[in-house]
Amino acid sequence: MTSTPIADLWTTLPGGANARPEAAYRLLEAAVEAFAERGYHATTTRDIATAAGMSPAALYIHYPSKAALLAEISRGGHAATLALVRKAAGGGTDPVARMRRLVEDFTRWHARGSTVGRVVNYELHALRPEDYAVVAGLRLDIERAVSEIIADGLAAGVFEVAEVKTAARAVTSLGIDVSRWYTDRSSESPEELGRRYGELVLRMLGARI
Amino acid sequence: MTSTPIADLWTTLPGGANARPEAAYRLLEAAVEAFAERGYHATTTRDIATAAGMSPAALYIHYPSKAALLAEISRGGHAATLALVRKAAGGGTDPVARMRRLVEDFTRWHARGSTVGRVVNYELHALRPEDYAVVAGLRLDIERAVSEIIADGLAAGVFEVAEVKTAARAVTSLGIDVSRWYTDRSSESPEELGRRYGELVLRMLGARI
Repeated sequence: MTSTPIADLWTTLPGGANARPEAAYRLLEAAVEAFAERGYHATTTRDIATAAGMSPAALYIHYPSKAALLAEISRGGHAATLALVRKAAGGGTDPVARMRRLVEDFTRWHARGSTVGRVVNYELHALRPEDYAVVAGLRLDIERAVSEIIADGLAAGVFEVAEVKTAARAVTSLGIDVSRWYTDRSSESPEELGRRYGELVLRMLGARI
Repeated sequence: MTSTPIADLWTTLPGGANARPEAAYRLLEAAVEAFAERGYHATTTRDIATAAGMSPAALYIHYPSKAALLAEISRGGHAATLALVRKAAGGGTDPVARMRRLVEDFTRWHARGSTVGRVVNYELHALRPEDYAVVAGLRLDIERAVSEIIADGLAAGVFEVAEVKTAARAVTSLGIDVSRWYTDRSSESPEELGRRYGELVLRMLGARI
């Protein structure tokens, strides 16, 4: 478990479009903890309200259902990581520098927000179809941004991989899986891990570094 | 979801020491599906017995509790992957060939058994302390075997990484995360994915291939 507040993990969204009342953040935090601990299906709205120090009725002011809470967590987490991926991908023309930044930021996000990351990535099957459709679109955009940098690196002759899709999958997979194993007790800081993963990924892509 | 029977995923255990009556395998299969679909805490022994076409009383002949089923799944999955890791690690003296074999087999196992893999890796926190202790030992042995090949490769001058522990973590992490995203509808076969991941990992470790 890591204790980075959701409001901080969400700040990569542009324009503060994701700002919520303080009570809504408390509910999101409580839902993340409960879903990560016991799973979505074993958690009730009452569990979440109680953990947030509210009544179920107060919860419903902010979220109409448990499904709406999961949708917000999943959509928010994916939107935040897409935003940092796009920022890295758009940072200049050097594929090596763009990929390094992307892996560093993506890894750090999943280490700092490992509890959120687990809910975001492991409870996809619990989303309602209409919520899953939105999240699937965001996931596709993340994969595309990563693939584009790899394709640019191949075109520039600075990367060397047999297959862009598999390589892109491996890059995102390494970062996402950080949320499974990273805890506050891990020996590397999120920043250190990000730097090391940046090096490992660039090598994996055949960059001469 | 993938449909490889548990009995096949378990066959890497030496001496058939893991053989169980057919009814026990049916219960394990049903438990894996239920835990993967709804999570350990939202699943009852009745759900599992019903899905396996048995009465709860018949379930208790084989497993005294839901916790015993999870323990068996987790221990069996970890023992099977440790066995294949050890087999690859012990295959000769060439660190490149050993690592290639390890990644190919480890990746293939997590693709073929992706549903089992998710339960094995994502429900660790639901294990009883005494079961977790056993599984944690198996996980440590897997990490050690991977680290040893990397250290051998560094000593032989065929690998080049800044830090053995982080590199070993990245190797196992890539393979484990396959169970999160791989499905029967994935475009690559488990064998093809294993080969591609073998290439990517060897590059990541600085092998000149």
